[in-house]
Amino acid sequence: MSSQHAAHLDRTFELAEQGLGGVAPRPSVGAVVVSEGVIIGEGITEPRPGRHAEPIALAAAGDKTRGATLYCSLEPHAFQGVAPPCTEAIIAAGITTVVSPIEDPNPSVSGNGFRQLKAAGIEVVRSATNQQIRRAELLIEGFTHHLNTRRPLVTLKLATSLDGKIATRTGDSQWITNSSSRSRVHEMRRQTDALITGIGTVLTDKPRLTARDSDGNPTGRPLLRVVVDTHGRIPADARLLQEPGEVLWVVGEGIDVTAPTDSTSIQKAGLIDGKINLAEVIDELGTRGLHTAMIEAGAGLAGAFIEANLIDKVSAFIAPKFIGGTEAPGPLAGTGISDIGEALTLENLTHTVIDGDILVEGYVLKVD
Amino acid sequence: MSSQHAAHLDRTFELAEQGLGGVAPRPSVGAVVVSEGVIIGEGITEPRPGRHAEPIALAAAGDKTRGATLYCSLEPHAFQGVAPPCTEAIIAAGITTVVSPIEDPNPSVSGNGFRQLKAAGIEVVRSATNQQIRRAELLIEGFTHHLNTRRPLVTLKLATSLDGKIATRTGDSQWITNSSSRSRVHEMRRQTDALITGIGTVLTDKPRLTARDSDGNPTGRPLLRVVVDTHGRIPADARLLQEPGEVLWVVGEGIDVTAPTDSTSIQKAGLIDGKINLAEVIDELGTRGLHTAMIEAGAGLAGAFIEANLIDKVSAFIAPKFIGGTEAPGPLAGTGISDIGEALTLENLTHTVIDGDILVEGYVLKVD
Repeated sequence: MSSQHAAHLDRTFELAEQGLGGVAPRPSVGAVVVSEGVIIGEGITEPRPGRHAEPIALAAAGDKTRGATLYCSLEPHAFQGVAPPCTEAIIAAGITTVVSPIEDPNPSVSGNGFRQLKAAGIEVVRSATNQQIRRAELLIEGFTHHLNTRRPLVTLKLATSLDGKIATRTGDSQWITNSSSRSRVHEMRRQTDALITGIGTVLTDKPRLTARDSDGNPTGRPLLRVVVDTHGRIPADARLLQEPGEVLWVVGEGIDVTAPTDSTSIQKAGLIDGKINLAEVIDELGTRGLHTAMIEAGAGLAGAFIEANLIDKVSAFIAPKFIGGTEAPGPLAGTGISDIGEALTLENLTHTVIDGDILVEGYVLKVD
Repeated sequence: MSSQHAAHLDRTFELAEQGLGGVAPRPSVGAVVVSEGVIIGEGITEPRPGRHAEPIALAAAGDKTRGATLYCSLEPHAFQGVAPPCTEAIIAAGITTVVSPIEDPNPSVSGNGFRQLKAAGIEVVRSATNQQIRRAELLIEGFTHHLNTRRPLVTLKLATSLDGKIATRTGDSQWITNSSSRSRVHEMRRQTDALITGIGTVLTDKPRLTARDSDGNPTGRPLLRVVVDTHGRIPADARLLQEPGEVLWVVGEGIDVTAPTDSTSIQKAGLIDGKINLAEVIDELGTRGLHTAMIEAGAGLAGAFIEANLIDKVSAFIAPKFIGGTEAPGPLAGTGISDIGEALTLENLTHTVIDGDILVEGYVLKVD
């Protein structure tokens, strides 16, 4: 593939990345219209009931689309849903070439988009580097996971010292990782559909659980923030209730609570050994059509999610410092395993150095 | 510098790496004699009272040294010590060019080697890439540290899961890291002058504490193995006593023990709060002229070394798996810090991915 092709395709990925977070149940797609080597229109999927990336890019290109090339990070969809089929818009605009690296895994598309375009005489170019294909797949990993499981892809975010501590023995935890790592966390928040935390973190750290830039200004759309709170203890003045965006307050069945704000909704979940059945929480997010959820919680809830086998992906930030001490907490409470052979193992790993911190990311190896 | 020069210099580093471990108080040096672009002799520093690298390489080159070029990983030494000055041998051999990236930090050399060679009409080439200079400095880091402090460079080796555990709650620790990481540890053992462990590890894990290849055969010279054992509890049948090489048995003052083997020596050390004064252990190794020591110990001794501020360097292997549980031990016992700002921090970091494990290495930032 020519370097120009490659650069335009990379631009669609950048756009799709910008769109991640709050666009579910749609996958975030980036689209670029190119005429005579110049980008004349760009688009990013809008949340429902907005438009898809392709018609936005075509509209931006105006009357110059005839004979132009359309680049998309994902196969254009081919059926009438909330939005009309993108394929029809592409054909009507007189696009002569469509460049897109991967098929839409949605069984309602799954190659039909490409077939419709070809049937209309449009050249479909599928060539892409392996790296580009991986990037395109990564952009829709939550969408794909939800298609397969009806649940969001659940990422556990951890931040520890080199000796595996999340706070000192006196509870000081701000900050273990460096400011670049913390910016990265805010970027991960922006790209996720929901954040999950526990009542302990709400009471102790008083987080806002929003995605912010280095000036503290919000980035992206308001996130759904989920608080796992067996006994219904969120105080009415909790900091996260002051921020825009819905809070899902998950309490144990039989606990009687009243929503403290208009943007708070309540889920009553079953209990296992006196604690919230976490699978019900993840199922609720799946029912809402959310593709991704990130857990930012203390050792108790993080350990419970691990032991319930509900984690799909891990993003572990490790700072090159030592906290020490047997009483300083590690990232996972609970019982843990007894034999090393039983350890939960990550695969498809990536390692990213961030100003001396290291970010280890991987997917939980599912053993059935 | 020409690519041929660079390749010959790199070869001297490889040779010096082979020589690391057991050659202290000498620095390990690699030397290569090149005539008409072809290597005609190589040498690695031998332990006292053997020869230095340069005369070995010159001798290997036989009668072809006249007009040849000598490459050395370190400036040739210029004084009469246990070995005669290498500069004299180089001049006598008729070498016309010496290529060497860094000065010997020993005040008895420190540029005198290069000056003597130049005075004899030999061209001295100091050009090297930054990477080569760093590599040359790394090869003698223990030697340099000992020159400055009269103590060995002390490296703490750790191996943890991603959640910072060194064993499960039941004590299972074999193996957290993968076989490639464990091979790397054996290579690190081979390159060090002494290994330090505690009586707890000796009793529980029954280690041999030797450097071995994947077939279990010893590599390199026997290491000095140091056991910190306040109450003198090493059993006479301890596995590490069966292996070749000296064991330094460090017991508390007033503890009466008898050496169980001819190769066991005893150090009686002062106590602080009922535990061995670890500074005395490191001082003893320094007095013996050792350049490097590596600590492979349980949480108690590792934490005590950290809290005594005796660690210079850390090599932390982290495996992408979770052990979990509040009772599973972390790498450092003891009290630990209370405020994050007091955390011991590493600098000059390197990160190496080893088959999915990550090795984080760095130097303790010394704050006076």
